[in-house]
Amino acid sequence: MASTPEEACFEAGIKFGALYHQFAGTPVSPESAPSLERAIEESIENQPYCERVSVTILDDRLDTSHGYTELTGEYMEVELVVAYEGAEVVASMAMEDGYPLMRLDSVESPA
Amino acid sequence: MASTPEEACFEAGIKFGALYHQFAGTPVSPESAPSLERAIEESIENQPYCERVSVTILDDRLDTSHGYTELTGEYMEVELVVAYEGAEVVASMAMEDGYPLMRLDSVESPA
Amino acid sequence: MASTPEEACFEAGIKFGALYHQFAGTPVSPESAPSLERAIEESIENQPYCERVSVTILDDRLDTSHGYTELTGEYMEVELVVAYEGAEVVASMAMEDGYPLMRLDSVESPA
Amino acid sequence: MASTPEEACFEAGIKFGALYHQFAGTPVSPESAPSLERAIEESIENQPYCERVSVTILDDRLDTSHGYTELTGEYMEVELVVAYEGAEVVASMAMEDGYPLMRLDSVESPA
Repeated sequence: MASTPEEACFEAGIKFGALYHQFAGTPVSPESAPSLERAIEESIENQPYCERVSVTILDDRLDTSHGYTELTGEYMEVELVVAYEGAEVVASMAMEDGYPLMRLDSVESPA
Repeated sequence: MASTPEEACFEAGIKFGALYHQFAGTPVSPESAPSLERAIEESIENQPYCERVSVTILDDRLDTSHGYTELTGEYMEVELVVAYEGAEVVASMAMEDGYPLMRLDSVESPA
Repeated sequence: MASTPEEACFEAGIKFGALYHQFAGTPVSPESAPSLERAIEESIENQPYCERVSVTILDDRLDTSHGYTELTGEYMEVELVVAYEGAEVVASMAMEDGYPLMRLDSVESPA
Repeated sequence: MASTPEEACFEAGIKFGALYHQFAGTPVSPESAPSLERAIEESIENQPYCERVSVTILDDRLDTSHGYTELTGEYMEVELVVAYEGAEVVASMAMEDGYPLMRLDSVESPA
């Protein structure tokens, strides 16, 4: 049997994988970045146990030589909070050494 | 060689296939539908020759028995306009006989 | 700080979210199901710490009234194994009460 | 009303947009490239009027510094054939000037 914090970490991972692979490849420009940020946040917040999602598209890094680019991990930073039966997990994604690293920032067990 | 209206129709098809397969599967609820509509419109409008995209998520049809559902063609209606070297194409998507049918509504040749 | 088994559960969740949202919406028929199963398995096995992915597309359930259907959780069963610094997690996905439930089957701490 | 060749070009565009945005972001390595090529081909061939799809993943270009990379247009070449009520369209995708260009190679009207 998995513990409650382990379940919470599993749920946090699901949200990250979903977020990334649902939206990677979306055409994005500095002008359309705000609506995409908001749609990503609100869509993933629909998922079970997901309390909050915060997405920042790094629009000053977007390659706009063809007017837009495709969203990849290189262009976004994400933080999300999962609450599962009293456990709370904060996780984030940012580039590290050329790779969009997803990581657990904190795991709190139920009181 | 393809004619200018044929190229415009090809471009319209690309936008529809992109729109559908980029966003199918996105978690959506009546609350998050407006931000998703807007993000879909603005992201696809980034693509070359795409003048306008209008997306309506049929939020009264969304299955909310688990709080949200995954976006499919069953839940959206789309109209888009492509302008390519003077040709203009209007195309739309709606359910027809249980299938999300994409179709050309009008094709205008360059004057 | 997260424990090693918690990190392993997070990694297992990432793989599930990625798998589901990358491939949901893919056109599939009984004839093309085997190549899609294999591609899903091999692509997700590329991800860090992912030891094994097993995907079964339930091709007898596919709606083929239009020749093919779009892949959703309704049509697949998945089991995957993650090994992270000596911890091992087995997780699976199957339909439960009309919802594609992802769950932790076992979590083993490092010896 | 659209002509038959225009409809065929629209259908060819749909297949390209679908193919690209369904599979962009998939984790891929030289080892998993062959199964992904086959799955892309067979899934898109399910779509209406699609006669043949040929996908080559340029596995010698894949960035494998993290063991795998995410599929983008930079790493694939595609050719597809659509037959629509006697019209036949051949279309292809390849990199051109840093952009994955989709283009019509030939359009044949019904005899």
